[in-house]
Amino acid sequence: MITDKLNFTVGPVQSCPAVRELGNEQVPYFRTPEFSELMKENERLMLKFAKAPQGARVCFMTGSGTASMEAAVANCFTPQDKVLIINGGSFGHRFQQLAEVHNIPHTVIRLETGKTLTREQLYRYDGQGFTGLLVNIHETSTGVLYDIDLISEFCRKNSLFLVVDSISSFLCDRFNMAGCGANVMITGSQKALACPPGISIIILDTLAQQRVMSNNPGCMYLDLKLALSNGERGQTPFTPAVGILRQINARLCQIENNGGVDSEIERVAALANDFRKRIKELPFEFVSNSMSNAVTSLHPKNVSAFSIVTILKDEYDIWVCPNGDGLADQIFRVGHIGYLSIEDNTRLINALADMYKRNLL
Amino acid sequence: MITDKLNFTVGPVQSCPAVRELGNEQVPYFRTPEFSELMKENERLMLKFAKAPQGARVCFMTGSGTASMEAAVANCFTPQDKVLIINGGSFGHRFQQLAEVHNIPHTVIRLETGKTLTREQLYRYDGQGFTGLLVNIHETSTGVLYDIDLISEFCRKNSLFLVVDSISSFLCDRFNMAGCGANVMITGSQKALACPPGISIIILDTLAQQRVMSNNPGCMYLDLKLALSNGERGQTPFTPAVGILRQINARLCQIENNGGVDSEIERVAALANDFRKRIKELPFEFVSNSMSNAVTSLHPKNVSAFSIVTILKDEYDIWVCPNGDGLADQIFRVGHIGYLSIEDNTRLINALADMYKRNLL
Repeated sequence: MITDKLNFTVGPVQSCPAVRELGNEQVPYFRTPEFSELMKENERLMLKFAKAPQGARVCFMTGSGTASMEAAVANCFTPQDKVLIINGGSFGHRFQQLAEVHNIPHTVIRLETGKTLTREQLYRYDGQGFTGLLVNIHETSTGVLYDIDLISEFCRKNSLFLVVDSISSFLCDRFNMAGCGANVMITGSQKALACPPGISIIILDTLAQQRVMSNNPGCMYLDLKLALSNGERGQTPFTPAVGILRQINARLCQIENNGGVDSEIERVAALANDFRKRIKELPFEFVSNSMSNAVTSLHPKNVSAFSIVTILKDEYDIWVCPNGDGLADQIFRVGHIGYLSIEDNTRLINALADMYKRNLL
Repeated sequence: MITDKLNFTVGPVQSCPAVRELGNEQVPYFRTPEFSELMKENERLMLKFAKAPQGARVCFMTGSGTASMEAAVANCFTPQDKVLIINGGSFGHRFQQLAEVHNIPHTVIRLETGKTLTREQLYRYDGQGFTGLLVNIHETSTGVLYDIDLISEFCRKNSLFLVVDSISSFLCDRFNMAGCGANVMITGSQKALACPPGISIIILDTLAQQRVMSNNPGCMYLDLKLALSNGERGQTPFTPAVGILRQINARLCQIENNGGVDSEIERVAALANDFRKRIKELPFEFVSNSMSNAVTSLHPKNVSAFSIVTILKDEYDIWVCPNGDGLADQIFRVGHIGYLSIEDNTRLINALADMYKRNLL
């Protein structure tokens, strides 16, 4: 058994009993009006929770978040574009790699680890003929949430096509797709949606849909034309992860019935704030100067971050999230997403306090 | 509830209780030695059951079967190749579309619905400078199983790189990857593996691995170089459908403990043979002149195939599989894969016999 640990990672995260029970049911045949109806409801609730503009559509992709990031890059841009990429860590770097793979001319704004994008950094690129901007609004690898208002204003001023990867920010931080003028937003099943991994989700406004329809992404599996046309009847071009789409449905309906997206964001914020208040007693520094509610990135002052991850797992049955990319010893992350409670925070804080007593922090 | 029907489709199919119970567990964090070990076991058992040659490797892709078909085309061929594609229905047609998307020069052998590939048809292309051959060894849309020995001999004689899509044939029909000299084989989680959809699987022999390493597929998500290198440590480049990979592990171990791949194939064959013997009493014709054990394609002599699908669903709580591509009225399919028994066959046969009594057949 490898699932008996308390999970504070940033995905996969813990699912509520209703979602898990669906995992125990047979997966139904899906080329049916019943499944189409469920998919239509998924689309309607996703649009509502993202506060998407009139006419926006949703594509449900069977794949990781990267599949949807790549679909956005390949379907919405061409070698005639010139895009600006905010790179504050692993996921910003991935957008850069995707632009390279698809021959999209690009310029990268490289940020320091843990630092948000400043007005000064961004406005260096004002009026320089860019056509688009790609941003992971929450750089999951370091827990930095960028200022969407700053980015939105800049994109409006420069008429940039705006792609917002909010994979780990959706349902955690306030987001208004229509308000900020994002043309594309992306999320995934295994973050705050708190379902098993396997589905990522792309919302396209009407301009993005036009780009998709006139573009050739060079890849059938990630061709959003097929996703959009099949989606009209609540279907997908290829067999999707039907079980996970049913779980997403249960979760979206649950959020709707519990007061909607704003209540859910408050719930996650309360968990994050509780943890951050209590961790201050222990020898850690916050890594990020602009935190998302989704995750707290911590730098231990005295010991290796990776050793803390290992001891929590092996001796306290708690998973927190290690960092990669050469930061494993400097940083680990505590997620506040998924089926977690204040009592779970207490268990983690107590474990860390115990490690401190044992001179392990 | 939409999952309370007896499911004879060709995917998603019914899962056994052990697989379903795993769906009820929390999905664990996966960048751990424990998950790597599970993935290594998945690789070992897949290689064993496919009777793969020495040095072969397995890539687990989060995506539908089409994702893996496209990965095979994009990673193993280039515009310098000249490939032969066997097109006997929807899935053969998909290989043709994928070759078009990736600019792989190709010639298509188009077969009549329900008819297998003959020696005469194939040998027309003998000695004509082809470099590869793509085949869905079981054309799922019509239930035709091609003669792997015929294809294998032809490929050896012409030194063709052989890609065998056995998505719906793996664990149903005898297959020996090393014996037939296939360089690539493909399958999916939701066919005879009888797990939820969301994972497809590619086995690459050493020559295929060489092609992958020297090729640029133009798509990061489907780049098998990344899958191969991460797979060395039992990991995937992007967050995979962890829950489904755990279910695949349970199912592979179950098959191993129940006597291995040959016993599993015998079990499926017995179900298929039982059904085919009993359906002969009713006014149907077999569509395929070379049947896979996975599915029986039926042509109703007197009524619309689609009306039978609908009545079985609405009045008998049984799903059988409708056909698309203009064949909806001519053909429906009965799958023999997944968690099914002789008693389930009886229930379907009784339902059809009852429809016959009611003058609905």
